[in-house]
Amino acid sequence: MPIKVVAFDGDDTLWHNETHFNFTQAALRDLLRGHAPNADVDARLFETEIANLSLYGYGIKSFTLSMIETALEITDGTIPASDLKVILDWGKRMLREPTELLEGVRETLLGMSQNHQLLLITKGDLFDQESKLARSGLAERFAGVEILSDKNVDSYRRVLSRRGIDAGEFVMVGNSLRSDVVPVVQLGGRAVHIPYEVTWQHEHVPEDELPKHGWRRISTIAELPSTLEEL
Amino acid sequence: MPIKVVAFDGDDTLWHNETHFNFTQAALRDLLRGHAPNADVDARLFETEIANLSLYGYGIKSFTLSMIETALEITDGTIPASDLKVILDWGKRMLREPTELLEGVRETLLGMSQNHQLLLITKGDLFDQESKLARSGLAERFAGVEILSDKNVDSYRRVLSRRGIDAGEFVMVGNSLRSDVVPVVQLGGRAVHIPYEVTWQHEHVPEDELPKHGWRRISTIAELPSTLEEL
Repeated sequence: MPIKVVAFDGDDTLWHNETHFNFTQAALRDLLRGHAPNADVDARLFETEIANLSLYGYGIKSFTLSMIETALEITDGTIPASDLKVILDWGKRMLREPTELLEGVRETLLGMSQNHQLLLITKGDLFDQESKLARSGLAERFAGVEILSDKNVDSYRRVLSRRGIDAGEFVMVGNSLRSDVVPVVQLGGRAVHIPYEVTWQHEHVPEDELPKHGWRRISTIAELPSTLEEL
Repeated sequence: MPIKVVAFDGDDTLWHNETHFNFTQAALRDLLRGHAPNADVDARLFETEIANLSLYGYGIKSFTLSMIETALEITDGTIPASDLKVILDWGKRMLREPTELLEGVRETLLGMSQNHQLLLITKGDLFDQESKLARSGLAERFAGVEILSDKNVDSYRRVLSRRGIDAGEFVMVGNSLRSDVVPVVQLGGRAVHIPYEVTWQHEHVPEDELPKHGWRRISTIAELPSTLEEL
């Protein structure tokens, strides 16, 4: 079946995201080293984030709340208020960060929008994602935008059904095997994986749980048009 | 034009919400009184929330971050870490709170779903709103659900256009003049206002800015079916 609809993930597929989280997490490590030199900040923060995921969902506000919780716990409450204010300000800075597109994104979307219907299907905090899209300058490329609280077989199925899209004519393009590739291939759609330089631990998928067919891996978005012809 | 589509706001229209915020805010007042007896906690928190609105948007996570910021500022950083942990836990408790329906909601929606297409159009945090809807037991009543980061003329216009709804056949039902009544009437739709026992200060609209026609005020949702016939 020919491909009619091409959907893109946003964070780390069209614009940089995880590097901002990594940068802030490194700063948190430095900040807490002064108060608790032996703590494994990365591990403790990850534990807190996963414990809070079902309550907070994804996004910068959730990350900020988890950083504060981790800082209070790791320092046994000895972290000074001024440092907590610094953590709050990091969160605000991340929310204000300009949307920095990955290389080749603008040109590729422009080219592909001639022959395909393009969707943005992104996950995370509604307010934050809308604001990033607005600042990206890409909004008019998309025939539709879906911001999901989580990407799984059910949420993709709802999007396709609501939009009257057959899974066989649908391709999802993104950097996350867990969110962009596995559930779409399970639904009978196809997927293209474009790994980003860093991946949040939670998004990893063991190689043996990956689908055998129905998806390809490329290294930059510029390869997408020719890959779609072979998919 | 006959009414075909009836859309409902969620928070404080179908289920209790603002009372949970008020309850937590009263607890914050008590907590901070010990550290800063003369501070006007309500006013300072409101200032912080409004200052953060364009960055955080609506919802419990935003409220929690603003409570922490306010607590740090009002106490000049002397608030103990254990109290900050208490504030974080309040936020989590609010996120876990069962969805408590207002009186008459279940029966009214059931009756109205026979003759109208029902939508839920709610504002706030995506993850939190989806979770509340799931716990409400009302999900199957709605032909569609729209969770918006803000409710204004533009966001309503996009919803109607995406769903192929004519404003003349559309009625919005909600507790907020600012979010549920004014923008919908401006678009040419109709609205029904059902005031809730408390309204967040930010949602108030001066009487002289209210539209003259196109909306009604009722006191409980049970009056809605008969009101629609007169609207």
